[in-house]
Amino acid sequence: MRIPEYDDIVSAHERISAFVHRTPVLTCKSIDEMLGVSLFFKCENFQKVGAFKFRGATNAVLSLSEEAAARGVATHSSGNHAAALALAAKQRGIKAYIVMPDNSPEVKKKAVKGYGGIITFCKPTLQAREEALVEVVEKTGATVVHPYNQFEVICGQGTAVKELLEDCDELDVVMTPVGGGGLLSGTATFVKHLYPEVKVWAGEPLMANDAWQSFNEGRLIPVVNPNTIADGLRTSLGDLSYAIIRDKVDRIFTVSEKSIVKAMRMMWERMKIIVEPSSAVPLAAIMENPGCFYQKKVGIILTGGNVDLDHLPFGCY
Amino acid sequence: MRIPEYDDIVSAHERISAFVHRTPVLTCKSIDEMLGVSLFFKCENFQKVGAFKFRGATNAVLSLSEEAAARGVATHSSGNHAAALALAAKQRGIKAYIVMPDNSPEVKKKAVKGYGGIITFCKPTLQAREEALVEVVEKTGATVVHPYNQFEVICGQGTAVKELLEDCDELDVVMTPVGGGGLLSGTATFVKHLYPEVKVWAGEPLMANDAWQSFNEGRLIPVVNPNTIADGLRTSLGDLSYAIIRDKVDRIFTVSEKSIVKAMRMMWERMKIIVEPSSAVPLAAIMENPGCFYQKKVGIILTGGNVDLDHLPFGCY
Repeated sequence: MRIPEYDDIVSAHERISAFVHRTPVLTCKSIDEMLGVSLFFKCENFQKVGAFKFRGATNAVLSLSEEAAARGVATHSSGNHAAALALAAKQRGIKAYIVMPDNSPEVKKKAVKGYGGIITFCKPTLQAREEALVEVVEKTGATVVHPYNQFEVICGQGTAVKELLEDCDELDVVMTPVGGGGLLSGTATFVKHLYPEVKVWAGEPLMANDAWQSFNEGRLIPVVNPNTIADGLRTSLGDLSYAIIRDKVDRIFTVSEKSIVKAMRMMWERMKIIVEPSSAVPLAAIMENPGCFYQKKVGIILTGGNVDLDHLPFGCY
Repeated sequence: MRIPEYDDIVSAHERISAFVHRTPVLTCKSIDEMLGVSLFFKCENFQKVGAFKFRGATNAVLSLSEEAAARGVATHSSGNHAAALALAAKQRGIKAYIVMPDNSPEVKKKAVKGYGGIITFCKPTLQAREEALVEVVEKTGATVVHPYNQFEVICGQGTAVKELLEDCDELDVVMTPVGGGGLLSGTATFVKHLYPEVKVWAGEPLMANDAWQSFNEGRLIPVVNPNTIADGLRTSLGDLSYAIIRDKVDRIFTVSEKSIVKAMRMMWERMKIIVEPSSAVPLAAIMENPGCFYQKKVGIILTGGNVDLDHLPFGCY
């Protein structure tokens, strides 16, 4: 199991930077004043496919040999990783085989098709997804790209904080949400190498708190029946992402569903940007724990902006 | 009636630029590809108070003599102009008296109060509003700042396109929505002085098409019972804004309510930014008239981002 290092993230950034957007870092005076902090938002909701996942997928696709690339890439996912891998493959001119549960929302199927992904539908269970993926790989020889528990993917996700630190220095804290842990582990690897004194903190929904449990009990504990609005954070850590988080992350905060929606609404109303619930989890942690953040300069990676406008959570909480 | 000229807008920009945000110009490859155009969006939804109205209000407030300023400013408005004037006055340290109908949405009252505005409530008729304003002015000696039909306000609104043209040159067309005509008349004044060959086109809801009627019939025709989702565009042109639009605007397109919502949704989904319905009217005009815009470089001023997240129009059309 190869552990990503600082240099690997720097190489990943060189590899992908012509293919990904350099997203802006935004600030918001009114939110800063309300919370007594200075926040710097790295807007990966403006990234291609609307999520940071495009960085890891692009790095994985561009890291393949010509020979492997010719056989394509494959994954099972119904979320942002599926769209990200499809577009990353399209940009290299290779095939992406995506296994999706047949009950996936129409909008997700359309996105993957729109980026040229070749979809195999399966029953909506983890077992069916994994079996379908094995079958696709046996037939095509495609390389599997995991959504988070993979060297190249973690290195790609680590490039977001590299840009954030280039655009604003002297941060006290860097925060990301944590689901599978790809973004958090890549972020921690990069930050702790350059600035060991900068805190790397994460936010996680209380309703899907496997990372918090694993981190505090010192062993990998998978999530059971995650029931959170933050649909990007319902996954469990993998062995690779867990090992990095265990060693390099300083603290994980858990937050309520109500705080997630409140934080998301605050960004929509005050910043006029669209972020998905997962993106709001770090701000929710700040709102729930103002004392821990008072007068600190905090960089936050906004993970994505893909929401279903016909089913918004405002008014439900 | 003093008609704003190019130099007046340049002076306004010098006067206000330390007080307003220089908003970014965004592009969106997927929208460009769908419509066969190159669009440049000037994001006044990111402006202070969430709307371009802050430019005109700030210019009016900063243009006052010390003596007049000491007596404060006043207006009647339940929209973005009320919040804009309140904050502009606060930034100069003077009072803003805002007459609002007593049935105004709670969120609008809170915004004006939040910026330190002194509210006088009145019955929700135009007559009651005008009478209440006269009374406030008699009592305080405050200077009335009209939402659009006023020299300083038009000059202030014209500064948005000045920045847009500084950030992207060689546009074929500049577009704004038209309601009271403050933004459109300021925009046309600036553009036609510098680049007479650049077209200045406007978008207007069919359900509030007084500018289109006035423009085509050659006389000022007020709007009757405007019933459009674009709440910023329900007002009639004034004599000053009309005179400028008549002389300097090239064309006004009217658009359906359905197109406005469709265009708004496209910007939310593809650009991940929050714009209010009024902002979507120019894009709606492009969607309804693709032949007029094919392969053109079009600058669009996005007027604002203030929407009620509890009452969104998606799914209604």
